[in-house]
Amino acid sequence: MNTEHTYTLALSCPDRVGIVAAVSGFLADRQGWILESNHHADQDTGRFFMRNVIKASSLEGGIESFVTAFGQIASSYEMNWRLSDSRQKKRVVLLVSKQDHCLVDLMYRWRSGDLGCDIACVISNHDDLRKYVEWHDVPYFHVPVTPDNKVEAYAEIDRLFGEHRGDVMVLARYMQILSPQLCDKYPGRIINIHHSFLPSFIGARPYHQAFDRGVKLIGATSHYVTSELDAGPIIEQDVVRIDHGDTAEDLVRYGRDVEKNVLSRALKYHLEDRVLLNGKRTVVFR
Amino acid sequence: MNTEHTYTLALSCPDRVGIVAAVSGFLADRQGWILESNHHADQDTGRFFMRNVIKASSLEGGIESFVTAFGQIASSYEMNWRLSDSRQKKRVVLLVSKQDHCLVDLMYRWRSGDLGCDIACVISNHDDLRKYVEWHDVPYFHVPVTPDNKVEAYAEIDRLFGEHRGDVMVLARYMQILSPQLCDKYPGRIINIHHSFLPSFIGARPYHQAFDRGVKLIGATSHYVTSELDAGPIIEQDVVRIDHGDTAEDLVRYGRDVEKNVLSRALKYHLEDRVLLNGKRTVVFR
Amino acid sequence: MNTEHTYTLALSCPDRVGIVAAVSGFLADRQGWILESNHHADQDTGRFFMRNVIKASSLEGGIESFVTAFGQIASSYEMNWRLSDSRQKKRVVLLVSKQDHCLVDLMYRWRSGDLGCDIACVISNHDDLRKYVEWHDVPYFHVPVTPDNKVEAYAEIDRLFGEHRGDVMVLARYMQILSPQLCDKYPGRIINIHHSFLPSFIGARPYHQAFDRGVKLIGATSHYVTSELDAGPIIEQDVVRIDHGDTAEDLVRYGRDVEKNVLSRALKYHLEDRVLLNGKRTVVFR
Amino acid sequence: MNTEHTYTLALSCPDRVGIVAAVSGFLADRQGWILESNHHADQDTGRFFMRNVIKASSLEGGIESFVTAFGQIASSYEMNWRLSDSRQKKRVVLLVSKQDHCLVDLMYRWRSGDLGCDIACVISNHDDLRKYVEWHDVPYFHVPVTPDNKVEAYAEIDRLFGEHRGDVMVLARYMQILSPQLCDKYPGRIINIHHSFLPSFIGARPYHQAFDRGVKLIGATSHYVTSELDAGPIIEQDVVRIDHGDTAEDLVRYGRDVEKNVLSRALKYHLEDRVLLNGKRTVVFR
Repeated sequence: MNTEHTYTLALSCPDRVGIVAAVSGFLADRQGWILESNHHADQDTGRFFMRNVIKASSLEGGIESFVTAFGQIASSYEMNWRLSDSRQKKRVVLLVSKQDHCLVDLMYRWRSGDLGCDIACVISNHDDLRKYVEWHDVPYFHVPVTPDNKVEAYAEIDRLFGEHRGDVMVLARYMQILSPQLCDKYPGRIINIHHSFLPSFIGARPYHQAFDRGVKLIGATSHYVTSELDAGPIIEQDVVRIDHGDTAEDLVRYGRDVEKNVLSRALKYHLEDRVLLNGKRTVVFR
Repeated sequence: MNTEHTYTLALSCPDRVGIVAAVSGFLADRQGWILESNHHADQDTGRFFMRNVIKASSLEGGIESFVTAFGQIASSYEMNWRLSDSRQKKRVVLLVSKQDHCLVDLMYRWRSGDLGCDIACVISNHDDLRKYVEWHDVPYFHVPVTPDNKVEAYAEIDRLFGEHRGDVMVLARYMQILSPQLCDKYPGRIINIHHSFLPSFIGARPYHQAFDRGVKLIGATSHYVTSELDAGPIIEQDVVRIDHGDTAEDLVRYGRDVEKNVLSRALKYHLEDRVLLNGKRTVVFR
Repeated sequence: MNTEHTYTLALSCPDRVGIVAAVSGFLADRQGWILESNHHADQDTGRFFMRNVIKASSLEGGIESFVTAFGQIASSYEMNWRLSDSRQKKRVVLLVSKQDHCLVDLMYRWRSGDLGCDIACVISNHDDLRKYVEWHDVPYFHVPVTPDNKVEAYAEIDRLFGEHRGDVMVLARYMQILSPQLCDKYPGRIINIHHSFLPSFIGARPYHQAFDRGVKLIGATSHYVTSELDAGPIIEQDVVRIDHGDTAEDLVRYGRDVEKNVLSRALKYHLEDRVLLNGKRTVVFR
Repeated sequence: MNTEHTYTLALSCPDRVGIVAAVSGFLADRQGWILESNHHADQDTGRFFMRNVIKASSLEGGIESFVTAFGQIASSYEMNWRLSDSRQKKRVVLLVSKQDHCLVDLMYRWRSGDLGCDIACVISNHDDLRKYVEWHDVPYFHVPVTPDNKVEAYAEIDRLFGEHRGDVMVLARYMQILSPQLCDKYPGRIINIHHSFLPSFIGARPYHQAFDRGVKLIGATSHYVTSELDAGPIIEQDVVRIDHGDTAEDLVRYGRDVEKNVLSRALKYHLEDRVLLNGKRTVVFR
């Protein structure tokens, strides 16, 4: 929504005295005006996490020199870091199957400027949603997946992701399990929405599992995909109350709203560099 | 809160045409004024559930004749049914260990008239909370449980429950696993609070399990106890949002609030005959 | 979602003994199988409210005879009542302005079968959303409203509502205040979404009012429209948490999600005859 | 809960480049290990807000020298600032009337170490809660308030607050309106709980106002007291869902739970120096 030109600097490193002073001193020396700043010192892992949003127009000296100079600080503090430019929108590749509620929601949020990204293309194992997607002038690729062609299919998806210069792959109810190779190739860059409150109801038909167990709330979970099914670092979760009057089909219906809300929030956090990996967990600077 | 004298009729039976007509016709014939009425026809199990609250002063013919006559209807429809008199407060036996947050909350709600029950006695495997309980003029029994005396200890708990004419046993963070015999003896009459959003994190130290998994919400679950650990019919659940800044100890602290709220709601529903068993699930008429 | 053919009988009347018996006896006599039933005896107004969903295939004797016969019961109990046939979808007329988030959400829920209604047409005081609406093969009417033409404009809206046999008019962020005449003509048939947690922040720019007041939650309210601005009977409300980091523009953005969720739920309750007027309040059988 | 010895530095000042660098550089020079850090740059007021929790054992040079030296930075940046020592517990003076739910909740949280404060004394315009309070070895003062003695009564409350070295005064359902003089004397140091979702239902009997309006959620609001009734800066709010089956008395009952949760959270935020005033609004670093 904010159209101001900004840089977002996100980093993590082993915690010690002086990190904030070093980073903020560096920014102040270049007249960097900090619009937002978040810190987290993790007592469990001993790592420090930081995110700064800097007004681009305030920075003296140019961004290339910034990157070079900051690299030296980063190196001395053993930082993982990245710098995003608000003018270079991140490119999202959506993977869908037949269900369209998450797709429709993300396309609307993209179209209304809410997400601040580009939708590079949509890939599906079915052809059903082509018309809807192409009406938005977004390329649509039908990549069928069968028990026999999985290797080729995932290679094709990987190729399309590269060809369209994807930054993040979003499984918007894709319903297929990606190959471990693909998961491992893009750590922290593939986002899934699972239709349960993980770790409850891993695997297939979670709403029916939830109905059978008689739970009083159902949920959805958005997480980074790893090669272990439904076990990747969680970005966002939410729940909705149900009661004895609701059938398993009602749960599916309520669940759709939770799924799309959770996925769109998780994606937005990711796009704004608010999510940092902390082992099997995430830091989410909201 | 309502001090009006009422009868609550709760029942379930195989679903068919005419049940409501039979029950409401019976009530109308005796001039029974219905203050509250809830129905549920379960499409999954084919059972029908009903709860009626009747103004006692409106009933003509006396309650004994009511019971006798209704027994015939109940029999012809194969009903499970019970009739509660608001003047006969249900008697609650609390089982606690060392943690007192649920105990303190339930004692306050009892004392302020919120729960509408009697606290018959408190039983604990430790002696720590005696002073607090006895200040309220409630009997306190210390029944230690060791690996070697479990049979005797659970027999003593059962004896105390009988001696104090307990209607419902509440495990208010009791931390011991009751014997299967005791669980089976009182189906739908023993209520537990588990400190996780079941079926996630069954067993010990659920908050630490939740912390390790990196979930973004934690919860608590109140359920009827069965001989299968943490698998009984769920009465009530709730969650609270956490974030990366919270340690496992913070989760324990937030969890206490969720636990006491969930347990007190579950108990209140039970005491007001709002909970009916439907196989492994519950119907909760709120 | 349920494709079974049903009739929904909704009624209210002065409370007394025997209403349930009379209605359920009537249904049982005709072999009416009750799928859902809700009751409410209002202690404040002394009125009784009831909703029954009846399996059409179970009913003996035909629906015309049902209506005639039930009219006699209704009359003797002074009932307001209505009977809906699930095969006759209610016809919704949407009024919109330039903002499209509620429109897009309702159109999606309609298209996916979630709402179980027909969208008869869309009327707007602007022409902006024509392309989007017509892509769905729904008629779009541009009825400009200026300070000088209000009488004619509202007459035209009323005419279109009649011509398209509208059952309910939905102001999906319409931003114009309907004339008192129009409001009074369709009591309980015009639904608005107000972008605040009423009765807070009545009138214009509620999110900016909320920002200025420094509230920690913002909300939305769906209500029946009456001639008194933002004072009609409330059907549904919800809130979302905000914090000091959110600008007034962020509130507008979060608010959009709350608005569309609240409006879609309110409309669904209305379409399923779950909402009954109780003076200035509503009974909502969920 | 954390027993580590810490200092909390909270400040606000006009926003400009270099504040974080100056503060964090100052801390790093003294080897100050930052456990928690929060920043907020307010676009609306142009002020910057910051809170740092520093490990006491890491600081070199002593706290007196720290204070003196930091005063110079503070002065050059025109900061409002305060430094809290975790070993000096803040002293809370509770004002209550006859209702005890907030009192009991706060006393429990204090006793269990959750709040990390001292309860200096309890003051009430009634004598009802003396026994309960004195059982906790907390002094109880009965200061009756009548239409005729308000000046003297509020002077006495002020005197007791001073005598018991109160840091913060908490109106835990006190039900009396403090004098403007008292409100103005302790800006940001008197916390009230109002039993509605402000700004709805200002003044008396808010639950009955809410019932009459037919809202679907009720709430509670904790705010700093100013001389304008129910208009002070809001610290925390929350809501709970109600429905048509709830009487005004039910609302009062549900409301008690919301009130105590909101008040205890607001007080905890205040005690941990997480709340900073921003004109008529607050910054709450959670």
